[in-house]
Amino acid sequence: MRIFGIGRTGLAALAATALVAGAVLAQDAPFGMQIAARQGMMAYRALNIGVLAAMAKGEAPYDAAAAQKAADNLAAQDALDQSMLWPPGSDNSANPESTALAAMWAEGSGIMDKASAYADAVAAMQAAAGKDLDSLRAALGPLGGACGDCHKAFRVAQ
Amino acid sequence: MRIFGIGRTGLAALAATALVAGAVLAQDAPFGMQIAARQGMMAYRALNIGVLAAMAKGEAPYDAAAAQKAADNLAAQDALDQSMLWPPGSDNSANPESTALAAMWAEGSGIMDKASAYADAVAAMQAAAGKDLDSLRAALGPLGGACGDCHKAFRVAQ
Repeated sequence: MRIFGIGRTGLAALAATALVAGAVLAQDAPFGMQIAARQGMMAYRALNIGVLAAMAKGEAPYDAAAAQKAADNLAAQDALDQSMLWPPGSDNSANPESTALAAMWAEGSGIMDKASAYADAVAAMQAAAGKDLDSLRAALGPLGGACGDCHKAFRVAQ
Repeated sequence: MRIFGIGRTGLAALAATALVAGAVLAQDAPFGMQIAARQGMMAYRALNIGVLAAMAKGEAPYDAAAAQKAADNLAAQDALDQSMLWPPGSDNSANPESTALAAMWAEGSGIMDKASAYADAVAAMQAAAGKDLDSLRAALGPLGGACGDCHKAFRVAQ
């Protein structure tokens, strides 16, 4: 059986794709899938930065392997192609689920410089996290700063 | 200035971490951050599978480079350490935002076999997507099947 040029396995795959999509609650709103994905990426970052911050604050004992893993996770996450998550127009005015400001997409917004600064801060954390607690703490400031710079410029005030 | 053993840059980092966390709407509920992150990962998968499915259905012209990129994205996403996203107890009964069933964490649930089957299907898609449309279509069935197998077993009926 072929419908629209797709065999049965293809149809099964498409049904399964719909199942994937069904898991994402915000999917029906404009850019719902992109917004859910990027907020999920932010949550992934927060969970891993949380491991590092807990050690920095002394809430968790310093664990070189766990710190290194968290930093490596941040680097792997940042290396993912996320270009499809940020289509122009997918800001807070299109869908209030997003806290992204349209200013991010404006000519000369500097968003890519901020993204580079974040990547640099993650790389510095990768070099520091597994070394010792003082190195981890020293790298956390610039990392948090890079997060904050982008949020201050391009996120709805909270 | 040092408070609780953390210097000013450390405090700035922690404030920034809170900013990160603030972006995630579901964060306050139990396991909110983990659930947001894993639903975001599902959305990331759906967006990339969507690129492949659109070509398979003929809704988009076959583009070898774009298909390969989507398949490579699925592989890179799957390679991320996501162990911290699935703490036992973070199922639908703890937080209705999640559609994950507690059965996933039960002894002998077979979840890791299903995860391996998904990884295999992604690898097969990576080998096929950039080759030609027929190869892409042939790889989409098993990929969709791997998604569906896990959803059927471990997701709240929808």
